[in-house]
Amino acid sequence: MLPAEVVIKEVGPRDGLQNETQKVPTEIKLKLIEMLEASGLSYIEATSFVHPKWIPQLSDADELLKQLSGSAQYSALVPNIKGLERAAQTNLNEIAVFISASEVHNQKNLNKSVQQAMADIKHVIENSCDRYNIRAYISMVLGSPFGDKIELEQVKQLMTELYALGVYEISLGDTTGMADPSQVDEVLTELLTDFDASKIALHFHDTNGLALANIYVSLQHGISVFDTSVGGLGGCPYAEGASGNVATEDVVYLMDQLNITTGIDSGQLLKTADFITTTLNITPVSSQLRKYKGGSR
Amino acid sequence: MLPAEVVIKEVGPRDGLQNETQKVPTEIKLKLIEMLEASGLSYIEATSFVHPKWIPQLSDADELLKQLSGSAQYSALVPNIKGLERAAQTNLNEIAVFISASEVHNQKNLNKSVQQAMADIKHVIENSCDRYNIRAYISMVLGSPFGDKIELEQVKQLMTELYALGVYEISLGDTTGMADPSQVDEVLTELLTDFDASKIALHFHDTNGLALANIYVSLQHGISVFDTSVGGLGGCPYAEGASGNVATEDVVYLMDQLNITTGIDSGQLLKTADFITTTLNITPVSSQLRKYKGGSR
Repeated sequence: MLPAEVVIKEVGPRDGLQNETQKVPTEIKLKLIEMLEASGLSYIEATSFVHPKWIPQLSDADELLKQLSGSAQYSALVPNIKGLERAAQTNLNEIAVFISASEVHNQKNLNKSVQQAMADIKHVIENSCDRYNIRAYISMVLGSPFGDKIELEQVKQLMTELYALGVYEISLGDTTGMADPSQVDEVLTELLTDFDASKIALHFHDTNGLALANIYVSLQHGISVFDTSVGGLGGCPYAEGASGNVATEDVVYLMDQLNITTGIDSGQLLKTADFITTTLNITPVSSQLRKYKGGSR
Repeated sequence: MLPAEVVIKEVGPRDGLQNETQKVPTEIKLKLIEMLEASGLSYIEATSFVHPKWIPQLSDADELLKQLSGSAQYSALVPNIKGLERAAQTNLNEIAVFISASEVHNQKNLNKSVQQAMADIKHVIENSCDRYNIRAYISMVLGSPFGDKIELEQVKQLMTELYALGVYEISLGDTTGMADPSQVDEVLTELLTDFDASKIALHFHDTNGLALANIYVSLQHGISVFDTSVGGLGGCPYAEGASGNVATEDVVYLMDQLNITTGIDSGQLLKTADFITTTLNITPVSSQLRKYKGGSR
């Protein structure tokens, strides 16, 4: 029995654009977010307060958030107290914190241990004065490209700590698209003995073309929140031309086929995917956008 | 419990190349087939005896088959008695017959009714003097783009007749990639009450990025033979740039992840996919080929 309804959380403006090599003008980002809302996306992770030195593509976070005036739920990544201070200058009422299940990735990406990252998340949450709904990401849950083995017990421990800190939902990341449906089946079977499916989201990358298969298996386990990126924005940092985040339009197609409600208009969404990939001159990677751009012949 | 072993039947030289707009020289086809065999493909549908007026891309069928000298099992499509006569001039010991589950598609594609197509298949088989192993295709089993509803009872009827004629395996086609995993689950549940999984193959197109999800569900039902096309050759006749047959390299990746034996060397296979798409100047559509061509960055 699959869920009757699914929430799609759009992460293209953040996870997508932070991985594009070019810096996108703020007005293009605003236009993109406006079009996403017009397509029915009700949750948009708009940007990140990671230091501009690390992610210059999102250095306009403060300015962008001030100009957003739609009705979607916006969110932004907050890595530390500095980021929290920047968030406090905006109208945000939701933020996201993040940690990696891979010790190596945590060191490479955040320059700190998993333990230190959790301490920093705790520090951020304690200082957020109950002002925000807080979502958490755990990345590399389904495998690490750095060769270190991900222990499910470690993931469970992180989840327990994050929920105890008041996080309302945890997004489990297949950050480099290494997961296969059999593995997703096993991992979810294990995690859902301890945690509630309604407080878990899944975040798949489509590097190996398996994101939709993995999402289908997740649906079978009652997962009903998925992170996606319009146009598959973001690419894959490890191989040019390969896919990054699973494309919103491909996931919406799947949900439509399965008669699962998303509230998203696939026609408007394809126009949005076409707009941003054309504007940024990005080769279409999603199945739906390739069909759309190919047209009939 | 998934199968421990899967047979991948390569249809790129036939189903792939017949849908490419350019005519490929015989020596390129020979080189492709040689490389496929070196990659471990043990079954190759090499060409078709459909009249050259309809498929000029495969008009060199006779010449091609005469020059094949590898150890793979070769096969070719035989549409009618004329085709059977041509097949008899070669060393083939396996042929494939075909019919569509869609009345409209049958008329458009073969210019005859489903009933007439079955009568012609019967005529071919009766005249083949037990010289061949005979495989059958039923296309459009999981949906027709022409709007006509496919009745599962009709599919069952066709399967019963084909098995009665001595066909050893029936390949069920999702010819335009319309199937979703939930539908595959339902259809296989129904068909496998009447038929043996070991005598059924599945033939998915990846138009909507769901082929791997559909294959995964098929594996769960014990299906262990899949038709694929190296490099995703063939494209989609309805939308330029969209995917056609599911790519052999993507299916092999999935099987490797699931620890299912195929006997195929993925490295050699990627070289083969790279060779044919580069030679024909085709944009890579498969996830694995895009990764391979993108390289590390």
